Amino acid sequence: MDGAVFACFSFYGTLLILKMYSLAVITGQLRLRRKAFANPEDALRHGGLAYHRTDPDVERSRRAHRNDMENIFPFLFLGGIYSLMEPNLYIAHVHFLVFFVARVVHSVAYLCALKAPTRSLAYTIGQIPCISIALQILVNVAARW
Amino acid sequence: MDGAVFACFSFYGTLLILKMYSLAVITGQLRLRRKAFANPEDALRHGGLAYHRTDPDVERSRRAHRNDMENIFPFLFLGGIYSLMEPNLYIAHVHFLVFFVARVVHSVAYLCALKAPTRSLAYTIGQIPCISIALQILVNVAARW
Amino acid sequence: MDGAVFACFSFYGTLLILKMYSLAVITGQLRLRRKAFANPEDALRHGGLAYHRTDPDVERSRRAHRNDMENIFPFLFLGGIYSLMEPNLYIAHVHFLVFFVARVVHSVAYLCALKAPTRSLAYTIGQIPCISIALQILVNVAARW
Repeated sequence: MDGAVFACFSFYGTLLILKMYSLAVITGQLRLRRKAFANPEDALRHGGLAYHRTDPDVERSRRAHRNDMENIFPFLFLGGIYSLMEPNLYIAHVHFLVFFVARVVHSVAYLCALKAPTRSLAYTIGQIPCISIALQILVNVAARW
Repeated sequence: MDGAVFACFSFYGTLLILKMYSLAVITGQLRLRRKAFANPEDALRHGGLAYHRTDPDVERSRRAHRNDMENIFPFLFLGGIYSLMEPNLYIAHVHFLVFFVARVVHSVAYLCALKAPTRSLAYTIGQIPCISIALQILVNVAARW
Repeated sequence: MDGAVFACFSFYGTLLILKMYSLAVITGQLRLRRKAFANPEDALRHGGLAYHRTDPDVERSRRAHRNDMENIFPFLFLGGIYSLMEPNLYIAHVHFLVFFVARVVHSVAYLCALKAPTRSLAYTIGQIPCISIALQILVNVAARW
């Protein structure tokens, strides 16, 4: 935790994890409100086997969550390695902030079904700092060999 | 690997990964026993295209695995950062152990379809150390600024 | 980034993340070409609600991506801890390389629907270095206690 970049990375990484947790809570709440349960044992507890069914909004929230796993987990790896490479604090901060804002917009666009291509645009903008970091890691390692 | 907390974290993190791997093995075994394959090329090898189909128990095992990804991967990030913050070993151990036990109970409750709300309870208890760690990271970073 | 093993791990880890990103791009391209969108708002932008549907090749690409999440993310944790344990560089490199090649073959076998058991074989071979690393971590931690 010594480096300022690593502290900055820890901060945004933790916020992103909390953002993901909130999607899990939203999925759970939607399952209860829409009475749409993935497991018969849950349906039985909440009214009967008829509620062992799918719901479009529950599935939407689950897709948003899966997309987060596909993108935020790689960021946690890339950002961690990058932080150890002693990058410029300001440049690193911009990388983390762009990714963070893009992923928050992505989740909001997903949950609210905002008009396309809002969500895809947020996804693409979020990928830019990730690709940038990935290339910097490869260059850094190549320079050592 | 110097710190005792980091060694403790590595131990539980590795056990949790092995637990996740075992879910993949269970899904694979269920696919073979129930003859329910996600891909036509697998079905063709095991009796014919009729076995390119879904099975409730295979899907259950896959849901347990996905829930692990949603929760264990964030723990690996949070626990790693937390271990670097030089927390008290005993308190850190309790955090890791509660999460570990909760996730094992969660998997057993999922696979055995235990009566609700056993599984949800295990999930919620497992979230407590994660939220605690997340807040400690945010406070720690905020204290530096 | 001091250790050679950690640099080697960062290199393969980053390549694997880029490989995963390419699966996301392939899924997106397949959705556009097959006109099969998971969200009504995307279908509306690309011809109408009739294209809010599933497609076998899109689902195949998504299964390959999910399998990567189930296996590459755990490798990023295990490989990171292992790199900090000061293993022999050559042995560590072999572990990382076997996993990397196995996962590339897995993705190709999945996307091209290669005859079974090509894909399962690649999966199993990729698991060998992961299990090896997991056991080495457990032994290393046990030796400290």
